[in-house]
Amino acid sequence: MSFDPLIEKILKTKNPTVMGLDPKLEYIPNGIKKEAFEAYGKTLEGAAEAIFLFNKALIDAVWDIVPAVKPQAAFYEMYGWQGVRALSDTIIYAQSKGMYVIVDAKRGDIGSTMEAYAEGWLGVTKVEDESYIPFGGDAMTVNGYLGSDAIEPMIMVCQTWGKAIFVLAKTSNPSSSDLQDILIEDVPIYEIMAHYCTRWGETLPGEYGYAGVGAVVGATYPEQLKALRRKFPGLFFLVPGYGAQGGGGADIVSAYDEYGLGAIVNASRSLMCAWQKAPGKSLEEATREEALRMKADIQPAAFR
Amino acid sequence: MSFDPLIEKILKTKNPTVMGLDPKLEYIPNGIKKEAFEAYGKTLEGAAEAIFLFNKALIDAVWDIVPAVKPQAAFYEMYGWQGVRALSDTIIYAQSKGMYVIVDAKRGDIGSTMEAYAEGWLGVTKVEDESYIPFGGDAMTVNGYLGSDAIEPMIMVCQTWGKAIFVLAKTSNPSSSDLQDILIEDVPIYEIMAHYCTRWGETLPGEYGYAGVGAVVGATYPEQLKALRRKFPGLFFLVPGYGAQGGGGADIVSAYDEYGLGAIVNASRSLMCAWQKAPGKSLEEATREEALRMKADIQPAAFR
Repeated sequence: MSFDPLIEKILKTKNPTVMGLDPKLEYIPNGIKKEAFEAYGKTLEGAAEAIFLFNKALIDAVWDIVPAVKPQAAFYEMYGWQGVRALSDTIIYAQSKGMYVIVDAKRGDIGSTMEAYAEGWLGVTKVEDESYIPFGGDAMTVNGYLGSDAIEPMIMVCQTWGKAIFVLAKTSNPSSSDLQDILIEDVPIYEIMAHYCTRWGETLPGEYGYAGVGAVVGATYPEQLKALRRKFPGLFFLVPGYGAQGGGGADIVSAYDEYGLGAIVNASRSLMCAWQKAPGKSLEEATREEALRMKADIQPAAFR
Repeated sequence: MSFDPLIEKILKTKNPTVMGLDPKLEYIPNGIKKEAFEAYGKTLEGAAEAIFLFNKALIDAVWDIVPAVKPQAAFYEMYGWQGVRALSDTIIYAQSKGMYVIVDAKRGDIGSTMEAYAEGWLGVTKVEDESYIPFGGDAMTVNGYLGSDAIEPMIMVCQTWGKAIFVLAKTSNPSSSDLQDILIEDVPIYEIMAHYCTRWGETLPGEYGYAGVGAVVGATYPEQLKALRRKFPGLFFLVPGYGAQGGGGADIVSAYDEYGLGAIVNASRSLMCAWQKAPGKSLEEATREEALRMKADIQPAAFR
């Protein structure tokens, strides 16, 4: 399985992009907020409802032209368990529309704990003799600072349930250099991490040449992206940092292979806030137009 | 503030230990599970209720002799948002009994995202003109792989609300060596991380000489613990890996300064499962006895 279900959706839409769902209340149209607050008050529950309704509208706008969504766990956890429920509802809704869901949770812990994260976010949890799908993501982001035994339980769950993970290699933020760029015998740590990813992925082969352990590499570092693509041809990249963080279509050309595969580029704010820059247009129209603009920006780079 | 509220509780109880709350259903007495499943069925909600009732009983057993609890987020997330609600309830209950709560969530992300995690787990979230405390932890664990800009928003929230963080340095698991032990000009990465912690902590000074940015260092690596204590006298350590993972009292002597401060040692399974090894005793009796045994094992090392 690996990333195959994602790759098939990319091939179908000819659009190797993912819509980040990092909702803030200030991104949400007043009409949606009003509906949520009237039902639940200006409470954590009301905020969570507003976020879910907003996500639903965004998904309705693009589900047939964008293959995947990437909810960022932090923006749900900041509204307590009520927010986490909205995240759960968002995952279910996106999948009901046929979208692939990458949970951006960046979890990383020791083996027995990572097993619990894996079951929770990608797998199945047992309650005595009953089985439940707690969150049911298709893939998730993972932090490899704790080493192999933090990744192995994830891989086990991926094998069992046909899921996949992206491990942080070179993140899009300015101070990713603090640790990730440190050189060890001329090899930066992010490249060592990419090397580990390739090794971890050996047990999760995919039909299209990409294993089920991908890497996160920021669009804000095009040179590094290019170097990693060249060195690790079987590594699928999740590329954040496009749009609001500064990266553009030209910066991510090298992330793709000759068939337009090998990477999926994320945009969050530019899609979620498109309606704010398009007066007179509905949320659905504005989001869809921005998604098509992004596709047009990236498609020539990908399918060349 | 920094870790001062924790340090004051340690001085009062003369017990520099923390009870890890990493609940699994198989750790929970049948009577508690029966009560929960009768109310909510063998569902995620029923499991979450059983976990909360179990935590409550554990807290009731030791609140006056153990200064802190450390719930591990993974073991709640594996039961979906219902589990996360049990985590929220556990934090509130532990604090109502006067305990300090370290949320073991190991979050790490880019700046704007980390701000959301910080507000969610340690701070305050705004919903329009209303303010809410989403989870209200006193401290949390953080992953520094993304560098300084991932830590700064945490520090801002710590300054505002009197909270503190522990950054992963040398984790207790076997493959922590994969990345953390890599040498850069003879200095291992975990030590570089400890150095960053000291620098990040400068803006969060404490009354007892310990800043509000501590480090996670496993009891399973006593030599490294000793070396870090010597090199970083102002760094407060969270020490997992005692008990079930193999570390003993003698292994963590060097983590403490001459006043018994500078570290807090975590035990999870040995406390949560004490009742299983003490037939005829109640959960409360067995947990309390094990907590006192652990205190006796560690106290001579700490208050020497």
